[in-house]
Amino acid sequence: MLAVGRELLIGRTLNTNAQWMGRRLARKGTRLAEITTVDDDLGEIAAGLKGCLGRRADFVIVVGGLGPTPDDMTLKGISKGIRMGLRSNEEALSLIREHYARRNLSTIEMTPARKKMATLPVGAKPVRNEVGTAPGVRLELEGTTVFCLPGVPSEMKSIFRESVEPEITKRLGKLYRKCISLKIEGIYESALAPTIESELRRHPDAYIKSHPRGIKEGKSRIELDVAMVSEDRETAEESAVQIVREIKSEIEAAGATVVSERGTAPSGRK
Amino acid sequence: MLAVGRELLIGRTLNTNAQWMGRRLARKGTRLAEITTVDDDLGEIAAGLKGCLGRRADFVIVVGGLGPTPDDMTLKGISKGIRMGLRSNEEALSLIREHYARRNLSTIEMTPARKKMATLPVGAKPVRNEVGTAPGVRLELEGTTVFCLPGVPSEMKSIFRESVEPEITKRLGKLYRKCISLKIEGIYESALAPTIESELRRHPDAYIKSHPRGIKEGKSRIELDVAMVSEDRETAEESAVQIVREIKSEIEAAGATVVSERGTAPSGRK
Repeated sequence: MLAVGRELLIGRTLNTNAQWMGRRLARKGTRLAEITTVDDDLGEIAAGLKGCLGRRADFVIVVGGLGPTPDDMTLKGISKGIRMGLRSNEEALSLIREHYARRNLSTIEMTPARKKMATLPVGAKPVRNEVGTAPGVRLELEGTTVFCLPGVPSEMKSIFRESVEPEITKRLGKLYRKCISLKIEGIYESALAPTIESELRRHPDAYIKSHPRGIKEGKSRIELDVAMVSEDRETAEESAVQIVREIKSEIEAAGATVVSERGTAPSGRK
Repeated sequence: MLAVGRELLIGRTLNTNAQWMGRRLARKGTRLAEITTVDDDLGEIAAGLKGCLGRRADFVIVVGGLGPTPDDMTLKGISKGIRMGLRSNEEALSLIREHYARRNLSTIEMTPARKKMATLPVGAKPVRNEVGTAPGVRLELEGTTVFCLPGVPSEMKSIFRESVEPEITKRLGKLYRKCISLKIEGIYESALAPTIESELRRHPDAYIKSHPRGIKEGKSRIELDVAMVSEDRETAEESAVQIVREIKSEIEAAGATVVSERGTAPSGRK
């Protein structure tokens, strides 16, 4: 994910878009490999895109900077990054006109600011935005599919659900993810470390991660996540449950307490 | 900022550390140039660091992955990225022992998991952590100062305030930033765009950014930020106020309403 916008760099806006998308992809058994946030600047956007393309990822999702104002320069930045010119796109113009028509604004003038939202890198296709004005954009580049989505959360989510997720699902195949979270009291992370290490040796495909949550009433508190991804629903479920059983028995033997255990049903493609 | 941790990529954790640090730096008249989040993986951390060093930034702040568990591999990843070995650091060991002593745990055993937190890339120095166990780490590399901080927010903030911020302030010089935020109703962003454009032509050093906030009761709502940074307090203040005055008169002439105006006192080094 390449997030574009100075508001993210100066802490004006919390990057909840990245969390939403990351969570959604994790539930499908895949994940964001990297999240990079850059400024509203042509050179920064171009370099950020090149960095993402260099990973040879299946998908790059660019978020933000598609609107009509001067700071919205994602498409120009991408055009610079891939050395392809910008061209007014008829399909994108129709989508924008349709949007205004739905809002009973059919008489609105197609000013340069509005036309900018339909000026795409050569070879790009617009993607319908059911919520806002600026269409999303889709590009195929060196085996990577690049989607550009608006930064407004409701628009980003709508286009992601409608047009991005189905593509990802198609490419992924069927995967299930089972995650179990434990809340533990009375053990330091440094004392838990050897247990996690031996579990990871036994189950190298597992994801096991501890999150220290401070000391309360003299007791160290930790949240521990165990997750397994598999093409087989039962395998994901059983492996996660087994790892948790093993960890619980070790930490209870060490005098710590598991105060809560919360599992998600194995999620994945339906 | 290089943030390390899969919990950020899968949406388990919202990157509030980046927002906190971004906001704090913005108030000083500077900013994060890029925020990159990578997985708990040696190759990813090494590549992420190399990308950051390639920017020739004054500072790179690495956050997360300093703890005792197997997923905590930031120092090893950095060692790989800069091709410097890891070595047990006596000063870091003392800091960890001191931390345990403060908690009346002086008899705690120095297990491999605990020693790992004191195993630093050659040439690195530990930085005192007043809140948690793992010391921060400081490295000078090709003109860039690299700080590694724990991901636990209270520890990150404490080390940033105590040891990172004074260094940044020293390098920055004296800067003031004045920011004014307007809430506007009754104008579309695409209609506001030409006003912003002409203001940016008149004041090329200004930061002017609109954030669309949807339609309420048929009226388009926008938040507009205007910020100026200057070595001179009055210049920052007066320029921001003047730009806002010009924008207000234009948008009110277009029939829109400024429903609120909120300014921050010019902030900067004391």
